[in-house]
Amino acid sequence: MRIIRAHEQIYKNYSTSPPGSCLLPYLCAMQNSSSVLKVGILGGGQLGRMLLQVAANYPVETWIMENDTECPSAHLCHHFVKGDIKNYSEVYNFGKGLDALTIEIENVNVEALEQLEQEGIKVFPKPSVLKIIRDKIQQKEYYRLHQIPTSNFVITQNLEELKQQQEFLPAVHKLAIGGYDGRGVKMIATKAELETGFDQPAVLEKMISIQKEIAVLVAINEKKETALYPPVEMLFDPVLNLLNYQLCPAELTTPILYKVEAVALAVAKNFNSPGLFAVEMFLDKTGNVFVNETAPRVHNSGHHTIEAHYSSQFDMLWRIILGYPLGNPAIILPSIMVNIIGANNYSGDVIYEGMNEVLEIENAYLHLYGKKQTRPGRKMGHITIISKEKHDLLHKANKVKRTLITKS
Amino acid sequence: MRIIRAHEQIYKNYSTSPPGSCLLPYLCAMQNSSSVLKVGILGGGQLGRMLLQVAANYPVETWIMENDTECPSAHLCHHFVKGDIKNYSEVYNFGKGLDALTIEIENVNVEALEQLEQEGIKVFPKPSVLKIIRDKIQQKEYYRLHQIPTSNFVITQNLEELKQQQEFLPAVHKLAIGGYDGRGVKMIATKAELETGFDQPAVLEKMISIQKEIAVLVAINEKKETALYPPVEMLFDPVLNLLNYQLCPAELTTPILYKVEAVALAVAKNFNSPGLFAVEMFLDKTGNVFVNETAPRVHNSGHHTIEAHYSSQFDMLWRIILGYPLGNPAIILPSIMVNIIGANNYSGDVIYEGMNEVLEIENAYLHLYGKKQTRPGRKMGHITIISKEKHDLLHKANKVKRTLITKS
Repeated sequence: MRIIRAHEQIYKNYSTSPPGSCLLPYLCAMQNSSSVLKVGILGGGQLGRMLLQVAANYPVETWIMENDTECPSAHLCHHFVKGDIKNYSEVYNFGKGLDALTIEIENVNVEALEQLEQEGIKVFPKPSVLKIIRDKIQQKEYYRLHQIPTSNFVITQNLEELKQQQEFLPAVHKLAIGGYDGRGVKMIATKAELETGFDQPAVLEKMISIQKEIAVLVAINEKKETALYPPVEMLFDPVLNLLNYQLCPAELTTPILYKVEAVALAVAKNFNSPGLFAVEMFLDKTGNVFVNETAPRVHNSGHHTIEAHYSSQFDMLWRIILGYPLGNPAIILPSIMVNIIGANNYSGDVIYEGMNEVLEIENAYLHLYGKKQTRPGRKMGHITIISKEKHDLLHKANKVKRTLITKS
Repeated sequence: MRIIRAHEQIYKNYSTSPPGSCLLPYLCAMQNSSSVLKVGILGGGQLGRMLLQVAANYPVETWIMENDTECPSAHLCHHFVKGDIKNYSEVYNFGKGLDALTIEIENVNVEALEQLEQEGIKVFPKPSVLKIIRDKIQQKEYYRLHQIPTSNFVITQNLEELKQQQEFLPAVHKLAIGGYDGRGVKMIATKAELETGFDQPAVLEKMISIQKEIAVLVAINEKKETALYPPVEMLFDPVLNLLNYQLCPAELTTPILYKVEAVALAVAKNFNSPGLFAVEMFLDKTGNVFVNETAPRVHNSGHHTIEAHYSSQFDMLWRIILGYPLGNPAIILPSIMVNIIGANNYSGDVIYEGMNEVLEIENAYLHLYGKKQTRPGRKMGHITIISKEKHDLLHKANKVKRTLITKS
């Protein structure tokens, strides 16, 4: 098996299968000649948009399914299908004439994807992965099963069960299903706060004293070749639980870097599925690594790869879907990424102020998501800055944060 | 005036206008706040396609006009208008509700653009530039007027006039209007070959003993700030007159580099128009520089800028159209670009062979143009390779050329 580690000089070990042999008929067909593949994406948000920007480089005909006809992806695909990605028959009908499917959000009808997979349609990642990921209880049990370090936890089916966990505090209570971007998550530090927990199936996770929050993207193709992007380091807005800055590469000691990479690889490889996996981890002050969550798709923590890495996460996923060799995940230059988030005091048609000053910054790259309406906390776009110097990155990111304002 | 020279460490001289002042109401409006600009592109080929891939980063709503509903740009714009870009009323009606227009091919109705410009619609480049460029006689006279070095020439209105130019041989005969990609150009070395010339208005250019063919992209915004991309060096297929490889940066001595830059700047700045200008030049063996042709738009000679430069030619043109500061034209890494051209023996639905082997090459970037049909000599896509080492670039480009085959 070939593993590409991005933080080192790239090295390539050849596949252990004999030269010339190819066990996968699909890949063999792709190697011999390429015609256009029909690929559908469930979800039409910014991740779909950025996937479609890159799709135009490859022999692929694109379909998007999304309920909002004015979503960020609507005008960049060959075929837009208005529909509910959570509805069995709509997803099934969307997928059944296509060669392959992928997602840009986990909250999709997995049963329809399972049926489509049985009928021979490739799904990236496999529906079996989505079943684990969409339920935080199953996700935690997956980590435990594969001896992947994660915070201690207990499962609570309702508020009554939660109230018995006083000795487990301080802890974080997470809804098993439906949480997203800070929703469905509650900090519970005291006995009194137990009352504010969820009265539905949930996971209660032991609070960790977080030193750093990092993420690693892992790419796996159908030949089980693997590419590891270097870890990124994140800073969150404590109020909205939305990302402020993201620095790449994360500053880690070599032993911790290797530990982080080994953990991320273990998370991704045990799914036994091709795809792209964003593994979010906490480091505590004593150098322990804990997996927080995994997203089996292109992810906010990989936006910087568009400019700062040889092969972006979007390029990488197309290579996986189309059966091509993996791209090069290595860094071209260090980077910082700033999310452009809807200001607290505005809702309505968006106007951006300070764009000129931001685009005056050397090697700052704007990505707007084409959302017409701003709302408090809404992800409207992002800016990536690349530079050799960390202090330069931080200085410029702060300038972006101070300068660019969303209004309405 | 600010000039960014890409081959040096980037330096920035501020505008000569007093700080805070702004003479252009349009730019001032952009500086204060950005809402979505409506921009139309005349032509829907690969250059339009790559413009649209980048447009999704910016606050812009896109229109394409093109006769072929299956053209490379058709599915990547907000609004596709089927129409003839050479027809006055179709171009006029297309443009009149928009904020700005640009082109991806020169062969458009310039009179309609002039009318639209008078009505306040921004056109990049100005129609006055297109009038000069579209007629090779006017283009040559423009170079002469501005003392820009170009090969000696005589104007021939018909075959009779051409036949009187025996003493001017060997020479190249170029149709004044309608030549493109090697069509409308004839080598005339002998008296007998004079008979094969054009019986229409044309330019007869003295043959130059070409040592190198190079091109320089120049970007100019409405504030007259200027960015210079480093020169590229080209190798052409002698049969089809289509580009084989293109290397960046061109290998030039410092005195020739400065001469080339000065000439390219003079060509672009004398147009008195914002826009992107691809200036194609010949070098002879004694170090003389001759301007061959100029394209006032994104151009084949700038494809490599997508991966190999901080700001690509497509990014740069959007910055110009939207009134933002210019991007950084400097090189991230040296590059080589290989056009993927329809093989001589095939016409019909395209199939690509060898894609897997090509995408196995480290830091090779595929760009297919989504053309369903291959024809001999048709530009189907391109591949850019980036690397520190010239020999590595050449080796990989040769591998691409040997490996990737278009069939039908």
